[in-house]
Amino acid sequence: MTIDIVVLPGDGIGPEVTDEAVRVLDWFVQHRAVPLRMQRRLFGSAAWAAERSTMPDATWNAIMAADALLFGATGSLDQTHIPPDERRKGSLLRIRKGLDAFANLRPVKAQPALAESSPFKARTVAGTDMVIVRELTAGMYFGTPRGVETQPDGTRRGVNTHSYTEAEIARAARFAFELARTRRGHVTSVDKANVMEAGRLWRDVVTEVHEAGYKDVTLEHMLADNCALQLGRAPTRFDVVVTDNLFGDLLSDCAGAINGSLGMLPSAALSAPREDGRRRALYEPVHGSAPDIAGKGIANPLGAILSAAMLLRWTANAPAEADALEAAVQAALDAGARTADIAMPGETVLSTRAMADAVIAA
Amino acid sequence: MTIDIVVLPGDGIGPEVTDEAVRVLDWFVQHRAVPLRMQRRLFGSAAWAAERSTMPDATWNAIMAADALLFGATGSLDQTHIPPDERRKGSLLRIRKGLDAFANLRPVKAQPALAESSPFKARTVAGTDMVIVRELTAGMYFGTPRGVETQPDGTRRGVNTHSYTEAEIARAARFAFELARTRRGHVTSVDKANVMEAGRLWRDVVTEVHEAGYKDVTLEHMLADNCALQLGRAPTRFDVVVTDNLFGDLLSDCAGAINGSLGMLPSAALSAPREDGRRRALYEPVHGSAPDIAGKGIANPLGAILSAAMLLRWTANAPAEADALEAAVQAALDAGARTADIAMPGETVLSTRAMADAVIAA
Ligand SMILES: CC(C)[C@H](C(=O)O)[C@@H](O)C(=O)O
Ligand SMILES: CC(C)[C@H](C(=O)O)[C@@H](O)C(=O)O
Repeated sequence: MTIDIVVLPGDGIGPEVTDEAVRVLDWFVQHRAVPLRMQRRLFGSAAWAAERSTMPDATWNAIMAADALLFGATGSLDQTHIPPDERRKGSLLRIRKGLDAFANLRPVKAQPALAESSPFKARTVAGTDMVIVRELTAGMYFGTPRGVETQPDGTRRGVNTHSYTEAEIARAARFAFELARTRRGHVTSVDKANVMEAGRLWRDVVTEVHEAGYKDVTLEHMLADNCALQLGRAPTRFDVVVTDNLFGDLLSDCAGAINGSLGMLPSAALSAPREDGRRRALYEPVHGSAPDIAGKGIANPLGAILSAAMLLRWTANAPAEADALEAAVQAALDAGARTADIAMPGETVLSTRAMADAVIAA
Repeated sequence: MTIDIVVLPGDGIGPEVTDEAVRVLDWFVQHRAVPLRMQRRLFGSAAWAAERSTMPDATWNAIMAADALLFGATGSLDQTHIPPDERRKGSLLRIRKGLDAFANLRPVKAQPALAESSPFKARTVAGTDMVIVRELTAGMYFGTPRGVETQPDGTRRGVNTHSYTEAEIARAARFAFELARTRRGHVTSVDKANVMEAGRLWRDVVTEVHEAGYKDVTLEHMLADNCALQLGRAPTRFDVVVTDNLFGDLLSDCAGAINGSLGMLPSAALSAPREDGRRRALYEPVHGSAPDIAGKGIANPLGAILSAAMLLRWTANAPAEADALEAAVQAALDAGARTADIAMPGETVLSTRAMADAVIAA
């Protein structure tokens, strides 16, 4: 039973870090017989340059047919030469929605080897080990009405809509509770129930799901502003954090400050199980396309490589291999392997390729 | 010309910290002839307990007639015994809107004396000196439609609307640029223009205001998620940050982690200038009502006292006195004065009252 992976390197540093993640996965195909078949597809700016389409039909069909995607990065605002329609067509948001990949997992772990380069004191972050479960297919990102309208007096007004149905909240909550059961059994649900009615509904539905089937997991509710503060003050108190699409976007970057660089952080976005019990999935590093360092071979590939480890765990059902890969990353860091973003003055800086070599060697 | 101040102690630790701020202001009335007249009014839960109204007419009329409010804290979700209508009537949001206090200033300064108790390394935060200008009367907090509706299939859906007019964005931007001129001349405008059309409008209008009259100030745009990260990684890079109501709520708590406690942070919310050129204003510490420590006399009064310093600066037009008060807070901290929230193991902990005494003595 072969597992079909579509590789979408995307823009900026996407191709260089994705190349390394693919090389690492190839290692598992060859040495551990993990049955992956990977095919690379053009997407976004690169596809626009080659074929004048940000989402060629062949790419979209491959995405929809695949078991999982390995995604690099997408350029955000530097696509002004591409018509707006085409930008939307080739957007990451369309892929997330198309896959119905509602459960975005963003693990954040303090790396003892990086204690020096972290902006935080070691006593603040040591032992941090949390997963943010960000709802990824609803909320502010997809709500309508949206857009800019001209008012009767001729001036403009911009509108976006934050919308959540009970079903959308409930499935994110269930996912978080299930995940907490495999971890330390604690869920923090984050909203602005003191200001937003939709946040009040979020809180009510999460509580109902908890009451109905997850009383073995502890649940606390936290306001989003307080969560932003606590992620900086006391990150070790969190196990699983579940929140909506927009708060999840900000809060995962708050948490990302812990190791000093987003370059380390992986993510997975999972759909509901299909008929065969498997979830469609999109794996991507949390960092963006970083156009300023693209093409230089200096980007940190660990976010992409750790995303490949999540692929081994969640799509290839190969937890031992996922553990082995995570341990290899840890070992490489412990041995002093550093890309520029996580190096301290005086430390030897590795290229993207050399960092991946260090992981493969480990 | 007497300046009328309405004091609203509110809930939880609100009364105890506000008492100290009033005592400090009284000192300036007596020793520096600052012409303040302060009157205390019931509001929120306390008013409900006393008069079965969260916003007695006398309070509302006093608020609307005053030059400024000195506000303590408001309980957020622990008001379940109060009918929803009454909760809204006595809400802080209604006061902010009623005063049209659109420009919320939240200064964040690293306190060298607190370097030990900060969760961050000293090298990260040393020299941090920024003001977040949060738009306070529009956006997600006030947009309609809002609420929870029952869908045709009987399940619920929650909706809130993020809405900004060109005029609302422009006045916040102008305020930020004017403020930057009195500081280091740099503005960071924060949005999610890559996802939200209203964020795209925010970015466009801020750019237009900049082009039209503030080319002497430097302007950069930043995505909100990246800003959350940069506030943790490199807070010294910010001078004035301008953003919408909801992002401002989260990002000011991110920045608040810098000293380890929200207890230190003041804020001011200012209206457009009235006919006499003065702005109506609401001064409040950034921290909340902290019901867990209320009534114990251990809360940190510095957020309230520094809010009083902002009152001296912005409402009483007494910048020398404001500077003197800020210097006194600094001196008290330098001399080792610590409330429980900012004390390190082994340090002597002062009560709320004793901390204020230390400031007054200085
Ligand atoms: C690139 C952008 C659309 C995206 C988002 O806002 O979701 C990114 O910030 C992320 O966190 O994955
Ligand atoms: C108490 C609450 C309504 C308020 C807000 O969300 O604006 C608070 O968090 C703040 O930041 O002033």
